Amino acid sequence: MIGKDRIAAANEAAEADLRAEYDALGAVLDRRGIDIAAVKEKVAGYGIAVPSWGVGTGGTRFARFPGAGEPSTIFDKLDDCGVIHELTGATPRVSLHVPWDDANPADLVAKGEELGLGFDAINSNTFQDQAEQAASYKFGSLSHTREEVRSQAVEHNLYCIELGRKIGSRALTIWVGDGSNFPGQVNFTRQFERYLDSARQIYAGLPEDWRLFTEHKIFEPAFYSTVVQDWGTNYLIATELGDRASCLVDLGHHAPTVNIEMIVARLIQFGKLGGFHFNDSKYGDDDLDTGSIDPYRLFLVFNELVEAADVPGFDPAHMLDQSHNVTDPIESLMNSAMEVQRAYAQALIVDRGALGGFQEENDALMASETLKRAFRTDVTPILQMARLEKGCAIDPVATYRASDYRGKVADERPVSTSGGGGIV
Amino acid sequence: MIGKDRIAAANEAAEADLRAEYDALGAVLDRRGIDIAAVKEKVAGYGIAVPSWGVGTGGTRFARFPGAGEPSTIFDKLDDCGVIHELTGATPRVSLHVPWDDANPADLVAKGEELGLGFDAINSNTFQDQAEQAASYKFGSLSHTREEVRSQAVEHNLYCIELGRKIGSRALTIWVGDGSNFPGQVNFTRQFERYLDSARQIYAGLPEDWRLFTEHKIFEPAFYSTVVQDWGTNYLIATELGDRASCLVDLGHHAPTVNIEMIVARLIQFGKLGGFHFNDSKYGDDDLDTGSIDPYRLFLVFNELVEAADVPGFDPAHMLDQSHNVTDPIESLMNSAMEVQRAYAQALIVDRGALGGFQEENDALMASETLKRAFRTDVTPILQMARLEKGCAIDPVATYRASDYRGKVADERPVSTSGGGGIV
Amino acid sequence: MIGKDRIAAANEAAEADLRAEYDALGAVLDRRGIDIAAVKEKVAGYGIAVPSWGVGTGGTRFARFPGAGEPSTIFDKLDDCGVIHELTGATPRVSLHVPWDDANPADLVAKGEELGLGFDAINSNTFQDQAEQAASYKFGSLSHTREEVRSQAVEHNLYCIELGRKIGSRALTIWVGDGSNFPGQVNFTRQFERYLDSARQIYAGLPEDWRLFTEHKIFEPAFYSTVVQDWGTNYLIATELGDRASCLVDLGHHAPTVNIEMIVARLIQFGKLGGFHFNDSKYGDDDLDTGSIDPYRLFLVFNELVEAADVPGFDPAHMLDQSHNVTDPIESLMNSAMEVQRAYAQALIVDRGALGGFQEENDALMASETLKRAFRTDVTPILQMARLEKGCAIDPVATYRASDYRGKVADERPVSTSGGGGIV
Amino acid sequence: MIGKDRIAAANEAAEADLRAEYDALGAVLDRRGIDIAAVKEKVAGYGIAVPSWGVGTGGTRFARFPGAGEPSTIFDKLDDCGVIHELTGATPRVSLHVPWDDANPADLVAKGEELGLGFDAINSNTFQDQAEQAASYKFGSLSHTREEVRSQAVEHNLYCIELGRKIGSRALTIWVGDGSNFPGQVNFTRQFERYLDSARQIYAGLPEDWRLFTEHKIFEPAFYSTVVQDWGTNYLIATELGDRASCLVDLGHHAPTVNIEMIVARLIQFGKLGGFHFNDSKYGDDDLDTGSIDPYRLFLVFNELVEAADVPGFDPAHMLDQSHNVTDPIESLMNSAMEVQRAYAQALIVDRGALGGFQEENDALMASETLKRAFRTDVTPILQMARLEKGCAIDPVATYRASDYRGKVADERPVSTSGGGGIV
Repeated sequence: MIGKDRIAAANEAAEADLRAEYDALGAVLDRRGIDIAAVKEKVAGYGIAVPSWGVGTGGTRFARFPGAGEPSTIFDKLDDCGVIHELTGATPRVSLHVPWDDANPADLVAKGEELGLGFDAINSNTFQDQAEQAASYKFGSLSHTREEVRSQAVEHNLYCIELGRKIGSRALTIWVGDGSNFPGQVNFTRQFERYLDSARQIYAGLPEDWRLFTEHKIFEPAFYSTVVQDWGTNYLIATELGDRASCLVDLGHHAPTVNIEMIVARLIQFGKLGGFHFNDSKYGDDDLDTGSIDPYRLFLVFNELVEAADVPGFDPAHMLDQSHNVTDPIESLMNSAMEVQRAYAQALIVDRGALGGFQEENDALMASETLKRAFRTDVTPILQMARLEKGCAIDPVATYRASDYRGKVADERPVSTSGGGGIV
Repeated sequence: MIGKDRIAAANEAAEADLRAEYDALGAVLDRRGIDIAAVKEKVAGYGIAVPSWGVGTGGTRFARFPGAGEPSTIFDKLDDCGVIHELTGATPRVSLHVPWDDANPADLVAKGEELGLGFDAINSNTFQDQAEQAASYKFGSLSHTREEVRSQAVEHNLYCIELGRKIGSRALTIWVGDGSNFPGQVNFTRQFERYLDSARQIYAGLPEDWRLFTEHKIFEPAFYSTVVQDWGTNYLIATELGDRASCLVDLGHHAPTVNIEMIVARLIQFGKLGGFHFNDSKYGDDDLDTGSIDPYRLFLVFNELVEAADVPGFDPAHMLDQSHNVTDPIESLMNSAMEVQRAYAQALIVDRGALGGFQEENDALMASETLKRAFRTDVTPILQMARLEKGCAIDPVATYRASDYRGKVADERPVSTSGGGGIV
Repeated sequence: MIGKDRIAAANEAAEADLRAEYDALGAVLDRRGIDIAAVKEKVAGYGIAVPSWGVGTGGTRFARFPGAGEPSTIFDKLDDCGVIHELTGATPRVSLHVPWDDANPADLVAKGEELGLGFDAINSNTFQDQAEQAASYKFGSLSHTREEVRSQAVEHNLYCIELGRKIGSRALTIWVGDGSNFPGQVNFTRQFERYLDSARQIYAGLPEDWRLFTEHKIFEPAFYSTVVQDWGTNYLIATELGDRASCLVDLGHHAPTVNIEMIVARLIQFGKLGGFHFNDSKYGDDDLDTGSIDPYRLFLVFNELVEAADVPGFDPAHMLDQSHNVTDPIESLMNSAMEVQRAYAQALIVDRGALGGFQEENDALMASETLKRAFRTDVTPILQMARLEKGCAIDPVATYRASDYRGKVADERPVSTSGGGGIV
Repeated sequence: MIGKDRIAAANEAAEADLRAEYDALGAVLDRRGIDIAAVKEKVAGYGIAVPSWGVGTGGTRFARFPGAGEPSTIFDKLDDCGVIHELTGATPRVSLHVPWDDANPADLVAKGEELGLGFDAINSNTFQDQAEQAASYKFGSLSHTREEVRSQAVEHNLYCIELGRKIGSRALTIWVGDGSNFPGQVNFTRQFERYLDSARQIYAGLPEDWRLFTEHKIFEPAFYSTVVQDWGTNYLIATELGDRASCLVDLGHHAPTVNIEMIVARLIQFGKLGGFHFNDSKYGDDDLDTGSIDPYRLFLVFNELVEAADVPGFDPAHMLDQSHNVTDPIESLMNSAMEVQRAYAQALIVDRGALGGFQEENDALMASETLKRAFRTDVTPILQMARLEKGCAIDPVATYRASDYRGKVADERPVSTSGGGGIV
């Protein structure tokens, strides 16, 4: 871990400038009728879950280029997640992935408590074959034509719930790779019937206070069709299953040019928005750092979330889901958590009264300007001040680099080998 | 009209070759266990509706380049539709568009009877302003923020139903241009609530034996968001309205790369496939001739339709919807109707028993080959023989050209002027 | 026109706040080693051309919904352009479109001088048929199969040059709609040979101190192929023609997901970037207001331009090209000009030394952050101060609305009628 | 291997039907003025290279699900390639990938001679790190910022040439993963300068009778920018390097909706089409079986190739490049080779005289129909007869399955383990 002293020392050097910039921003917002302290308080209360798999270096089917000091166990991963939260104060929970992170629940809980981390939604994995596995998922899992494969996949999900209960999770996230690579390979209707049948069995095993999130994706690893290809199918699933089932939106899982913020609005309207996997993308499911490609799109998603904040029972889960192929994953996750906070803060300062008026009057230009004005506002001082007041770092990346955490764990952890990706 | 004698004379020259090719194909299919006569009978019984607006030359926002002898009234248009059906025997119904085609219902019925044409779904138009119109649709119609605009649009749809009843239509098709061009211009949720409210009023006025088709489209004429942007939203509408409401799928209204045949399967599975607007596209809503760009995709759609043929009550409406910018619209519509028949015939000869087996066994390669084998089969002789036996043309385009129908109507109809499109 | 007094009065009310915000921003930038005054000076010196056709309400193939007080002549249009420049000080030139704007050159020059406006690149139009025209462009213009059509199109371009010389233009912009709607309709190679042959004839008539810009576009109005479909073909044209020929990049003319800023970099590197048509888009050539959909993409383009500022002879033309379907065109053009200035200012404050270092070290995260930091900076006070010091409006839209310019010209100008678009 | 007797026995059962269908097709083509024997001869003379890596089961970043009897060495792979050619007679050459296939050249040549296989273009690999490698390609190879990495990558390519010379290859294919994942990570211009500099060093080492193929790709494994992102950049490379450098077109490496056949035509026109990597795709670089998703697009590419057949010196390389994730790779490669032959045969029977006339007259409908007519023709009997006469299998997949080749090698080859893909 980084340590309070180190953080405090780094903050001390930056605090005066921060206070000046915070005050200047406060004055600007005050002229717009916005109380900067209230915004800061909401930002400070915001938390997003980190995916355990995100702290390892990601790769593509072509190659994986590991960095130094990669985590080799879930406990290493939790250490890294602890650093992220220690420095940013923005990531109080970790989302586990089973079987990658399978371990003694008591040990997981103890480690989480040690680091001040809780456990978010648990993720099942039926898109890979494990060494000890009886049946293969090569041709599908929950929607496979053969009953024994589907049963195995259902059982795995029930196992995940069981593990999750023991560590304090409250939700299960299902994403499957089921689909097809050739027209004709699957019967779309029968495949989806089988998926629904399996999902119903999992839902039947869901504790009363849990939620079930299903995730859609247009393509990859299947390249002609995907059984849960879009929000339309995802909505059907959530409706068929019941009240505790809802849809997870991953920002990179849509067809090119699709208006994602509108999908978010529709799911909210019909009570089926379960949560998010945040990341950014330019081409496909690129899993790039959140806000790195199109930050305005991220803001527009948060604009919908803030707009819906008063909807009774509205409480979507927020998680990051990224692949860090060329950066230190800890740095990327810290920055991404802060980008999400930034979008949230910007959405909070939208003048919603004015916006509603412009919408009513069809004043498209001023409605657009109202959003742009909030988006243009550099809310960095708000985020920094929220961190400072929590004892976290004003500049998490700089503080992290100065600590040489990575160098230290590199000395302790086994060297991770280069991977060839899936093509060979 | 072309005339039975002219058609018969043209057919006579081609008949011997056709019979030879039909017999050769019959032998090929017989070896696959398929009775060519049974396929021919189904093809002969198939009909698709022609859009009245399709017989005029289309255009873009940049320009419209009219051809000679353009129809100037709905009665001219019906004449052209009559020619299409006379030559192909494949287009027994015309789909009207109001107010473009508004006329005395008795006159429409009389003209239809004269030409052997019935009337398919009627289309309302609330995406343009008409000269006499009280309120403008500039900022929307069924979902407009102002009640009087929505009422006007609802009234127009009820008027369309009324007209449709008098001419024998049994369905109303609603497509609106409502959406937005700027983030923030509309509140997605409130806009959709207003849309649903208006649609419910129309549905309330729907005769018991009518169906209501709603059409989704990802973009154009709105370029940031569209109120019915995809099949997910379209499904919500159909579900909210009731049993007689269902979804119309236009093949060009989807995001790039989207798997359309899978959407078709989903809507069938959930009882909400209302019908089609057939056309083809490469980039956006290009409205190109059906089957001209990706004929295999068209076949895959028909593969789903034939697969679902035994679903009780399954009876989607089939319509063409194209923009003929560089061809004689009569020729394009004839060819397109035949392309749809071709895809239907190809889908009929898929070996569904074998396909189901390969799907069950996850034999992806042979499943694909089973579809490809049917698609590769040149079913032209079946289509031609079906036409010959109906007294229609073996080669409709050649017979049409030989008749100089276009030259004759060009002498009688007023000259249509070049249009500048919407940009000036 | 709006009038200096009205502007000054409006500015007076806002000046104190502006000075406070400008000073606060100056302090922030100073801590980064940036002199705000130097940035302001560059922004003040920046100008972008307004398209004459942009001041009329645009439309789609479905409809055009005109606003009140539409300009009916080029002189009306110049008045509107004058207002834009009077209020923003950012649009010193107008780009004419012939034949839409054809008029007595002396009158144009006189009007321009009266308004303080010059004339930018002149645009030819061979994508529409004009009433008096001998041959039709239905099947192409510069690349048409028939020699007389190509000659007519070449002549028209030479006429545009002639007109342009008389009014002080220094460049010709060619965009054609030539392409095809069906596979097979054109022979790609022969069509492009004909295009090049025609373009060479135009280039031969280009004055020594002129430049020729050719514009590529992936689709629309042709929907299967376009003769200048992408920057690759555009580059071939510029190379074949000669040194004074270069490529125009319209931000909405690319395939989905294409990295436009990289195309800009390539064209700069190979000496063939002629200029820009700025706008924004989500789906196709949506012609939305610049920066309204993806402002970070606009910034990334300007990042390339500032990066290349020292390349000898580097002087791309900057023009707006938008379709204003739901806003007052004057307002949209003012805002868009300011969005371009904003992106320019943000690109100016990128720490290029640091960026180069991070690139050299493959520190992807910090390189990204270096750009994001500049982008996040709200440079509005710089833009406002530049305007204030020029005697232009701190808030151009508010000042424009307060002036009721639109209401006044609506009383004087003929009412523009609703258009049906190209589809009927 | 399968064995002549087994093939002959299988053919015997199918020969009578084939002869009947061949004769019937011959009669059809004869009526169109086409000599079926001449088409058959050209098809029989056509060969396409198989990629050595294609005979192993492919995977994605999520997982790889190996099949039974996977090849474990290049000699196993050559055995599998031998089977493909034995059965289809369509794949006389293998394209090696180094270092995956690195081996004693004399052994490779001997094995090739034993199997009747030659060696096509050799492929270098600088997108993965090898165990013994000094410098990492994590941040690029030919375009890396550090000279020692670029040198290592250049050296590797020179090594590939050296190996290729010894086994009879005549071309080097370069595809790199270089690019970036974040805006700002690389300087586009300097990165491309470095790429060109490295490529020039490789070109300098190219034997006089060799060709250099460079391959472009829009994204993956880099997700924000790719150094050779499209054919425009690829063309610049080929032009900068010299006459023996040309562009390789992989059908799956383009932005969505891009007109690939037009790119092919442009590269032919400017003398820079080097060859193809054939496959099919729906979303991205899906590497699906050739012709499985959009067979008409494949035909349109071959239409350009046949159109250009008389261009002096025109001799593009034809290779397959696919990832077989859910099929037996031998079956997929056989089918894909036959799909390419099919597209070639269909393109050969296009009535080019008629097509040229329709193009000249702008008869778009009949031009389209001329292509469609050839495409609709089921040329299967031509392909089958060409195989029968060569002693290859009428039905390669059925004959292969009956031989149980896969079962036999599964007994001999080591079991391949499931792969986790690049993500963990």
